[in-house]
Amino acid sequence: MNRPVPSALRAALGEDRLARAAWSRLAEPGDVAAARLVAEVGATLALEAVVTGRGPERWRTRLEDVDPAGDVAAVRAAGGRLVVPGDEEWPAGLADLDVDATGERPLGAPFCLWVRGPARLGDVAARSAALVGSRAATAYGQHVTAELAVGLAERGFAVVSGGAFGIDAAAHRAAVAVEGTSVAVLACGVDRSYPPGNAALLARLARTGALVSEVPPGSTPTRWRFLERNRLIAALTRGTVVVEAAWRSGALSTADRAERLHRPVGAVPGPVTSPASAGCHRLLRERGAVCVTSAPEAAELLGELGQEVLTAPAVEQRPFDGLDREELRVAECLPRRTGADLDRLARDSGLDAGAVQALLGRLELSGHAVRSDGGWRRAAGV
Amino acid sequence: MNRPVPSALRAALGEDRLARAAWSRLAEPGDVAAARLVAEVGATLALEAVVTGRGPERWRTRLEDVDPAGDVAAVRAAGGRLVVPGDEEWPAGLADLDVDATGERPLGAPFCLWVRGPARLGDVAARSAALVGSRAATAYGQHVTAELAVGLAERGFAVVSGGAFGIDAAAHRAAVAVEGTSVAVLACGVDRSYPPGNAALLARLARTGALVSEVPPGSTPTRWRFLERNRLIAALTRGTVVVEAAWRSGALSTADRAERLHRPVGAVPGPVTSPASAGCHRLLRERGAVCVTSAPEAAELLGELGQEVLTAPAVEQRPFDGLDREELRVAECLPRRTGADLDRLARDSGLDAGAVQALLGRLELSGHAVRSDGGWRRAAGV
Repeated sequence: MNRPVPSALRAALGEDRLARAAWSRLAEPGDVAAARLVAEVGATLALEAVVTGRGPERWRTRLEDVDPAGDVAAVRAAGGRLVVPGDEEWPAGLADLDVDATGERPLGAPFCLWVRGPARLGDVAARSAALVGSRAATAYGQHVTAELAVGLAERGFAVVSGGAFGIDAAAHRAAVAVEGTSVAVLACGVDRSYPPGNAALLARLARTGALVSEVPPGSTPTRWRFLERNRLIAALTRGTVVVEAAWRSGALSTADRAERLHRPVGAVPGPVTSPASAGCHRLLRERGAVCVTSAPEAAELLGELGQEVLTAPAVEQRPFDGLDREELRVAECLPRRTGADLDRLARDSGLDAGAVQALLGRLELSGHAVRSDGGWRRAAGV
Repeated sequence: MNRPVPSALRAALGEDRLARAAWSRLAEPGDVAAARLVAEVGATLALEAVVTGRGPERWRTRLEDVDPAGDVAAVRAAGGRLVVPGDEEWPAGLADLDVDATGERPLGAPFCLWVRGPARLGDVAARSAALVGSRAATAYGQHVTAELAVGLAERGFAVVSGGAFGIDAAAHRAAVAVEGTSVAVLACGVDRSYPPGNAALLARLARTGALVSEVPPGSTPTRWRFLERNRLIAALTRGTVVVEAAWRSGALSTADRAERLHRPVGAVPGPVTSPASAGCHRLLRERGAVCVTSAPEAAELLGELGQEVLTAPAVEQRPFDGLDREELRVAECLPRRTGADLDRLARDSGLDAGAVQALLGRLELSGHAVRSDGGWRRAAGV
């Protein structure tokens, strides 16, 4: 059964980095069996089993295409790097993808990550938010996305999303505009621009944030890879906020992955008349997602409780604010002009005279009631 | 201590109906001490204790104003009636107001209800929804309110709300337009129109649905009475849906009362940029309200689960719908024109040839794949 080893693979049999790079081409993203094999025996031994024909036939189909050293050279040529477990910047949270805590099957950690850009992945993952949503975003969705991205970036959160039009692009653009760290996780190689219309934006992220992928340079995006990419967005962040999503939307799969990884999920509500918000409302109704309406609320979702005081929006002060129930009853009965006597106030308020007298004393102290004509009336301006 | 009995009260000392009518003028709505006294010793004995001076001084302040027979005559003159516990139409659910299940103090059942209109209160309460919200409603809020009211009315639910401008009026108008039962619970006497601008609408409800109040004819609305009125809206319905509410809004107090009565609470989301929806989002975030976006969802909130199938909005069918994960991986690799052989499909999909063959068989059966040129390609139209 010992088959000849393709020359491009010889070096990989002795080096974990190259073996992982090889696996990223041999197996599709989210191939849990491959992830488990690599986790159990290590990337090099697992690779050797495939190469020599002692392992499952399944991963042999692409052996001839594998050239890990060539892929590393290609990512370097694009100004990028290969990041593997054990590297200082490898995000610890990715290990959650190999855990089977919920009784469901694990999602499968990536063998390695191909990265372009100055952002260090470990730092990103330690303080980051996934902002995801539909390609077919409305002006409302893009506006709210920008508000959230700016607010999170200003609070020191990295913004993580895909590279698509719509919500993804709106999130990156807004984060970049305030010099925040923005990271796009791609379903194709980090040396490619998909969709081409976002080429300039992706190039910008490669200069100031990061482009990340688990498939090697040159790889094409497929629907399968987009789906599996979503688990990386979820795993690389402290929580996921879905800003706008149709009833069926890829963004819901990111929310699903986040939930399975025990990361908090938030959803931004919108008009119930807008199909672009139907998926968000579905998350609120069916999945217990947290309703997120502002950047401070998004930060709270990500665990920032207590670091900033969540304040109610400024509201008009009303004259009777702060009164207790019985004080309110008496205050309401106070005439504006001519004073009323105790008996009348007792009758009008439905309280006995003794109680009314005590309450009037408190209302006088709080500036709501004044004595007048031997009786009581409302203070001016109340 | 035996004081003279005012002549207007003599008959009430011997008759529960009149005694309850008297209490509705003696004590303010939500006066829990009075409600408890009446519940414990009965309305007539409790009244006698007050009249003779053996009871607390507190409720004596209005004794001179009490004329229950006069109030009954007044409500009759307005085409209405007095409804008391024991009457066939008395809603059983009002008893929840006297229960202290949550450890909080009870809310206080009304002594009686003053009613105008053909709707029978017991029937209303058995199948009804509170639709409440801000006076300062937006066009969006009014539109959604109308959708909900019509959908609920068509499902046989009575719509219950206040009598205010904005959401209240929009709910009544829409329910009435489809000949549904609509009920306004007022903070003033049912013979009065408040606000005056809604006089025609309230008159319409008095002809086709009902106007309900716990304060006797002629009573003026006060802030206190509006607040306590909200507990009646909550208690007279199977659940409360807040359609639009500012961060601070009376509608939130209705939701709070519903929650304390263990009635389900729903909130309609809206744009996060709209202050008119801030209270609804607050209910979703802080109070665990259910996100309600349509009449079927409102009906489900009210316990209609299973009586109608909740369907997802009609969505575009996509070619790969219904495929499992591995089928999708192979289907994506199928060329559109020239057939591909097993080896190529295995390599492209990252699966072994045996698995690909089995999957192709399933894809052929499901109409996704066809044999071509000794290989396989996508079926036309897929």
